[in-house]
Amino acid sequence: MQTPNNVAIVGSGLVGSLLAMYLLKRGHKVDIYDRREDIRNIKFSGRSINLAVSERGWHALDAIGIGDEVRKIAIPLYRRAIHTLEQPMYFQPYGKEGEAIYSISRGALNKLMIDLAEEAGANFLFDQKVWDVDLPEATLYTGGSDKSDRKANKYDVVFGADGAFSRVRHKMQRRSLFNYSQEFLETGYKELTIPANEDGTHKLDKNSFHIWPRGRFMLIAMPNTDGSFTCTLFLPYHGEVSFDTLNTEESIKAFFETYFPTVIEVIPDLIKDFTEHPTSALLTIKCYPWTYWDKVALIGDAAHAIVPFYGQGMNAGFEDITVLNELMEAHSDNWEAVFKAYETSRKPNADAIAELSYRNFMEMSTKTADASFILRKKIEAKFYTEHPDKWVPLYSRVTFSRKPYAEALDQGDKQRLIMDEVMKMPNIEQLWDSEEVMNKIERLIAE
Amino acid sequence: MQTPNNVAIVGSGLVGSLLAMYLLKRGHKVDIYDRREDIRNIKFSGRSINLAVSERGWHALDAIGIGDEVRKIAIPLYRRAIHTLEQPMYFQPYGKEGEAIYSISRGALNKLMIDLAEEAGANFLFDQKVWDVDLPEATLYTGGSDKSDRKANKYDVVFGADGAFSRVRHKMQRRSLFNYSQEFLETGYKELTIPANEDGTHKLDKNSFHIWPRGRFMLIAMPNTDGSFTCTLFLPYHGEVSFDTLNTEESIKAFFETYFPTVIEVIPDLIKDFTEHPTSALLTIKCYPWTYWDKVALIGDAAHAIVPFYGQGMNAGFEDITVLNELMEAHSDNWEAVFKAYETSRKPNADAIAELSYRNFMEMSTKTADASFILRKKIEAKFYTEHPDKWVPLYSRVTFSRKPYAEALDQGDKQRLIMDEVMKMPNIEQLWDSEEVMNKIERLIAE
Repeated sequence: MQTPNNVAIVGSGLVGSLLAMYLLKRGHKVDIYDRREDIRNIKFSGRSINLAVSERGWHALDAIGIGDEVRKIAIPLYRRAIHTLEQPMYFQPYGKEGEAIYSISRGALNKLMIDLAEEAGANFLFDQKVWDVDLPEATLYTGGSDKSDRKANKYDVVFGADGAFSRVRHKMQRRSLFNYSQEFLETGYKELTIPANEDGTHKLDKNSFHIWPRGRFMLIAMPNTDGSFTCTLFLPYHGEVSFDTLNTEESIKAFFETYFPTVIEVIPDLIKDFTEHPTSALLTIKCYPWTYWDKVALIGDAAHAIVPFYGQGMNAGFEDITVLNELMEAHSDNWEAVFKAYETSRKPNADAIAELSYRNFMEMSTKTADASFILRKKIEAKFYTEHPDKWVPLYSRVTFSRKPYAEALDQGDKQRLIMDEVMKMPNIEQLWDSEEVMNKIERLIAE
Repeated sequence: MQTPNNVAIVGSGLVGSLLAMYLLKRGHKVDIYDRREDIRNIKFSGRSINLAVSERGWHALDAIGIGDEVRKIAIPLYRRAIHTLEQPMYFQPYGKEGEAIYSISRGALNKLMIDLAEEAGANFLFDQKVWDVDLPEATLYTGGSDKSDRKANKYDVVFGADGAFSRVRHKMQRRSLFNYSQEFLETGYKELTIPANEDGTHKLDKNSFHIWPRGRFMLIAMPNTDGSFTCTLFLPYHGEVSFDTLNTEESIKAFFETYFPTVIEVIPDLIKDFTEHPTSALLTIKCYPWTYWDKVALIGDAAHAIVPFYGQGMNAGFEDITVLNELMEAHSDNWEAVFKAYETSRKPNADAIAELSYRNFMEMSTKTADASFILRKKIEAKFYTEHPDKWVPLYSRVTFSRKPYAEALDQGDKQRLIMDEVMKMPNIEQLWDSEEVMNKIERLIAE
């Protein structure tokens, strides 16, 4: 054990709370600041997409001993349930038998994590706005909006776990040689709710990730333990079919009747949800460096906010903690060495999952309903079953393994080129599960 | 002529001053704000790289009738003069006979442009810090640092011509859906000076752009009308040979003795220049949108700051004005229509010149001294001479034409692939100017 340090974490979200538990276990003292009030006392906002915890997330939770607590509020999703306009609903399994992603309401998980961090000894300071950060002094200025009312809170180390619009990063951004980008999608999203049946059961298959792919837009639904589903409508801001044009009760109703006729039956408060819930933006944030001397480090969305289409935002943030913890162990909490190794090793993987997440919007909204895409996935799945040592599908590598994201991106690109070749074979629709096709893939891999 | 508008330009640099002349010619009233004092009254700072005015720049200057005034302080550079360590200095022509880029000191040009804009009727407000911008109201807040001392200056239209660290853009950046990136090179630069001979003549060939390429770093020199050269040393911040390691008189001297032995003779104040001049950063800034309603538009570096390695920063900014002026004419100063068309048409070209400029650092610092690169250029030049309709070299297209940058980037990529093939031909070193090679290029173009 090293000398215990006084550590401040800015942000009491999922990453901030989990990081606190890891730091406490290493003997440090931890204060967590949040500008908002304690979310355990309020109704969680209507602007969040359910979380999909997968391998990287579970690993970080289990390693600190809270995985089983979290499993109690998680529902396994073994497959996608695809709802097209033309044909009956059908399933696409996510991985091999038993492999699943786990749906959890963001609000429920965050409340649980704060409870657990508090039990572990974290000191939460809610309603505390951090107005300024002195980076070389690891000092947070809190208090009133007037400068004279501010209080200086000095620490040994400060973590910025304060999300996509991080205050701590904002301060680092003003230095020279700080690379930064924010890129918005032209698609926004809105939360809707499918309530439970009167007996508390789910209105749709509860072990599926439901998708209604419609090309430039889509609706998804993920189950909650109370029998409800959190739905998310992804839709362009502008254009013929867009949030712009859905500005009256009539237009909203007509939109759902045209594109999601079966959904209307299960969302009784459709118009109310739609008009009252905000339209939220989707963006990718990249920056570098992530750390300042041995004093300050960014983590989670503050360092790398991504779009939600691979379900990896929280998982990537939790994996930051796994990596950081390994490095604290390796470098005995020598923060300068830890921080340098942390940002160097983690940055390429953060960039890779950002790219994969961005690309997956197209896959989810368009290709899941595309015959050629479905055939590809079937061929890949068959080859994977026969040669699990030679082909791990991209989705499985990202979701059901802890192999680096950068490796997954790379492998995925190689696999796409191979499958492009395979799909050019004559009569591939008939021959898809033949020896000939499997042999061709094997040859292409060997090339 | 439309109803005259009250227009504010923030920034009295090259783009701001030229834009003022164009707006005044269209009958508008123009105030130009600058946070700094009038540069006509001060010595220009020691942190600037000489400008290279080329076709796009001259077009914008000539169209408003000031090209000839500017030519008086410009020196034509017909070629690169390459100074390697191993061999005697040699030349690479930039284009065809008579084609040149024009070296001008940034300070001298800016002073002249302010004079000319003032003569044309622009109202310059120096030492006026713009603290805040109300975008929907096109209002600039100037005055003291205290909010109560601020004065609201309302306009019909505001242009942000306030450079890479634009205050106007900073305000737009805080809106949702504003895409933004800033990316620094790991190479910085420092200005040095080769003074004139005692008789006022130049110490080096004055009609050349001088380069001392050294791989990861390089020195360049561009002539001024007073007989001096403005030199720029581009060098990494960190690493074995870097600004980090040049921290004593001895290390600076040793560095120049090792890598630039002939330069020492012509820079008498080397140590003084080196230690007194700041080390400046090189960065690329991209953002979008560039405009806000019919009220505010970014232009020049404020919209698209680029690294200096293609000599196109100012030329690109001036071309923004050319495009804007065409659109004001086409849309009769309907600002909403003008701004929408301006940002849509200009953005892909700004991105393209950013990319080309970034890539050109490698070309200048490494490849200009590389035998295979020189051979490539010779083959390209020969083919261009024989088939000027089929092959405009990338450098010529960017520098000596007004064809869109995006087209140049695209063509350049195609040409590189063709030349990659040509360079694989056996005995290309001997055969380079043969019919066989020329025919092969023709065939590859036709494919």
